[in-house]
Amino acid sequence: MPKVSHRGDEMPASPIRRLVPLANKAIERGIKVYRLNIGQPDVPTPPEAFEALTRIDRKVLEYSPSEGLLSLRKKLLQYYKRFNIDVDLDDIIVTTGGSEAVLFAFMACLDPGDEIIVPEPAYANYMAFAISAGAKIVTIPSSIDDGFELPPVEKFEELITPRTKGILICNPNNPTGYLYTMKEMLQIRDLVLKHDLFLFSDEVYREFCYTGAPYISAFHLPGIEDKVVLIDSVSKRYNECGIRVGALITKHKELKKNVMKFCQARLSPPLLGQLVAEASIDTPAEYMLATYNEYVERRKYLIDRINNIPGCYSPIPMGAFYTLVRLPVDDADKFCRWCLEEFSYEGETIFMAPASGFYTTPGMGVDEVRIAYVLKKEDLGRAMTVLAKALEAYPGRVDRR
Amino acid sequence: MPKVSHRGDEMPASPIRRLVPLANKAIERGIKVYRLNIGQPDVPTPPEAFEALTRIDRKVLEYSPSEGLLSLRKKLLQYYKRFNIDVDLDDIIVTTGGSEAVLFAFMACLDPGDEIIVPEPAYANYMAFAISAGAKIVTIPSSIDDGFELPPVEKFEELITPRTKGILICNPNNPTGYLYTMKEMLQIRDLVLKHDLFLFSDEVYREFCYTGAPYISAFHLPGIEDKVVLIDSVSKRYNECGIRVGALITKHKELKKNVMKFCQARLSPPLLGQLVAEASIDTPAEYMLATYNEYVERRKYLIDRINNIPGCYSPIPMGAFYTLVRLPVDDADKFCRWCLEEFSYEGETIFMAPASGFYTTPGMGVDEVRIAYVLKKEDLGRAMTVLAKALEAYPGRVDRR
Repeated sequence: MPKVSHRGDEMPASPIRRLVPLANKAIERGIKVYRLNIGQPDVPTPPEAFEALTRIDRKVLEYSPSEGLLSLRKKLLQYYKRFNIDVDLDDIIVTTGGSEAVLFAFMACLDPGDEIIVPEPAYANYMAFAISAGAKIVTIPSSIDDGFELPPVEKFEELITPRTKGILICNPNNPTGYLYTMKEMLQIRDLVLKHDLFLFSDEVYREFCYTGAPYISAFHLPGIEDKVVLIDSVSKRYNECGIRVGALITKHKELKKNVMKFCQARLSPPLLGQLVAEASIDTPAEYMLATYNEYVERRKYLIDRINNIPGCYSPIPMGAFYTLVRLPVDDADKFCRWCLEEFSYEGETIFMAPASGFYTTPGMGVDEVRIAYVLKKEDLGRAMTVLAKALEAYPGRVDRR
Repeated sequence: MPKVSHRGDEMPASPIRRLVPLANKAIERGIKVYRLNIGQPDVPTPPEAFEALTRIDRKVLEYSPSEGLLSLRKKLLQYYKRFNIDVDLDDIIVTTGGSEAVLFAFMACLDPGDEIIVPEPAYANYMAFAISAGAKIVTIPSSIDDGFELPPVEKFEELITPRTKGILICNPNNPTGYLYTMKEMLQIRDLVLKHDLFLFSDEVYREFCYTGAPYISAFHLPGIEDKVVLIDSVSKRYNECGIRVGALITKHKELKKNVMKFCQARLSPPLLGQLVAEASIDTPAEYMLATYNEYVERRKYLIDRINNIPGCYSPIPMGAFYTLVRLPVDDADKFCRWCLEEFSYEGETIFMAPASGFYTTPGMGVDEVRIAYVLKKEDLGRAMTVLAKALEAYPGRVDRR
């Protein structure tokens, strides 16, 4: 039998994925499972998105340009202008979801052995894309006790080597919900400038900032415009995760040229998704505001409930629709598994994401889970009741403080 | 300025792509350009595909499973059964076009420095995906004078090293239109068996075989079922290249597991494309037959016309919708460029793909072009008239024989 690649073996199998079959079995046993585990909101996709599909006036569903439909790129340009992101049309390359934007950014910037520094906990798939590129993700732990603020600049400096090619941030952050302050962003800017690094900035949760402070894009930072690689996606903001439309935005000329070679190799991003994305950018402000308000309400409600469960703690997330929660348990992996396999309360249980998948430092996040507040308030309420009951019954309960 | 990766620099920029701006400029000058350069047929997408879009009954355009929609995979299973491809449901992994299937196959099978052997001329993007994986494509030239038949087995044996992990074939072939015989397929089978290799088999043109002989899939070859990695796509057969739906099919358990990790990292293939692809599999036999007959007719007409132009030669392609043509020119790259930049006949010119992009052996294909017969007969006829006139006028004409 021919041997598979080491690369494939090294790819992380996410702890969330391992739990999916257990969730399905629980459902088969007739148990209602509250899915707090993934960023798939229950908010309806805007009608504009569906209408675009009824307006298709083509005889052939043909390849679109490798850089994306011109009409979509023009709309995106207007969209970014609204956020004072000052880019040109040819800086915007449409990708197959934000995922492909990360993959192509890594492929075009990083050679095998190159390193990027990422504050952790971090979105688990960055690791997978780094392994695809043969690159190394070097993590700096941030702490739940500090609300996941940016680790001190000295920690970054300590980790910079001749192989360091960039820093990656996700802002607003998945999985923590943290929102970097202007002070922190300027610290990152100074590091990037001093060491001539790329700044990979994943800003797909841009629309979900709850502090009232102005949104800060990596492109707002003066002096590093040519070093920024912005990762974007329409998935979260219009709740159309399935259409697979994102963007990679850069002003770095050589990088743009090389990213385009990866784009040309895969021919084109999905045509139908692009038609939907283009129409979605015209979603009225009322929809966007209603969605925003819904998340604000869910967030307040969820965090209040969590922090009222004995032994649980969550900082207040300032963006996105996730929070990391510390639980009074021996091992969050085991606890999440136990909830699906052995526990139910009034015929219901919960599916949460163990935080271990978001850390690479061994032992980090062992008593943490990520909860996505993608369900309506009453479901979140039921889920928190179930969580409280589960923690009372769980044999591995540990009261640390 | 931070430096881009060497990998990105190494990615080939296709000679076809370099000509696109010239074609656009010709159009701006008011010249009609016959596009024989890419596999984007003018045949309408079947109505079933469009109807699927009017039947979407979802509130949320949500992520689909990473392995693809179950309903689509079931349909594909039935489809493959019709071709006596005996695979199980869980052998079929839906990908974002055949492109992603090639990328993930390489990523999951090949480590940096690993080699695969590919008869050339070959689809140019295999090279790009190999570079993405850090792997090396080792080519064996086939010859237009032998109608692009499989090079002798000894040539393969000579190139096999400890780093050789697989053989890749495209059957029916892009760019040559060659269809491997049973004898050749068994030779490949024996090589794969003897050296314990993967057989990557790109069969996206399966529906377009013109010999009357039964279609031979890599999965029909006895004894190597676990070594086959089949690459498929709905793009060509239903003329829906833009929806980006393909498949990677393998019975190799470890490979399947690792490919799924790459699939999970990119979350899901495009939802809307999958809905369209699923409906397309129900396209009535009449549409498929009419399309087939159309290509049979175009093929006969085109090859007759080409072989009647003094100095031109094309073997008869037995499958797909391409043919490689030898022209009486000094350099086909230059000639193709000249056709777009300096020539027109009665306000028209032609856009062909220089064959140099399909070879890695230097000097190969220097007087060859690929012509895609994706235009209707009368357009092909006009295009051949323009080609004949261009060859009469071209200053670099060379009559070799």
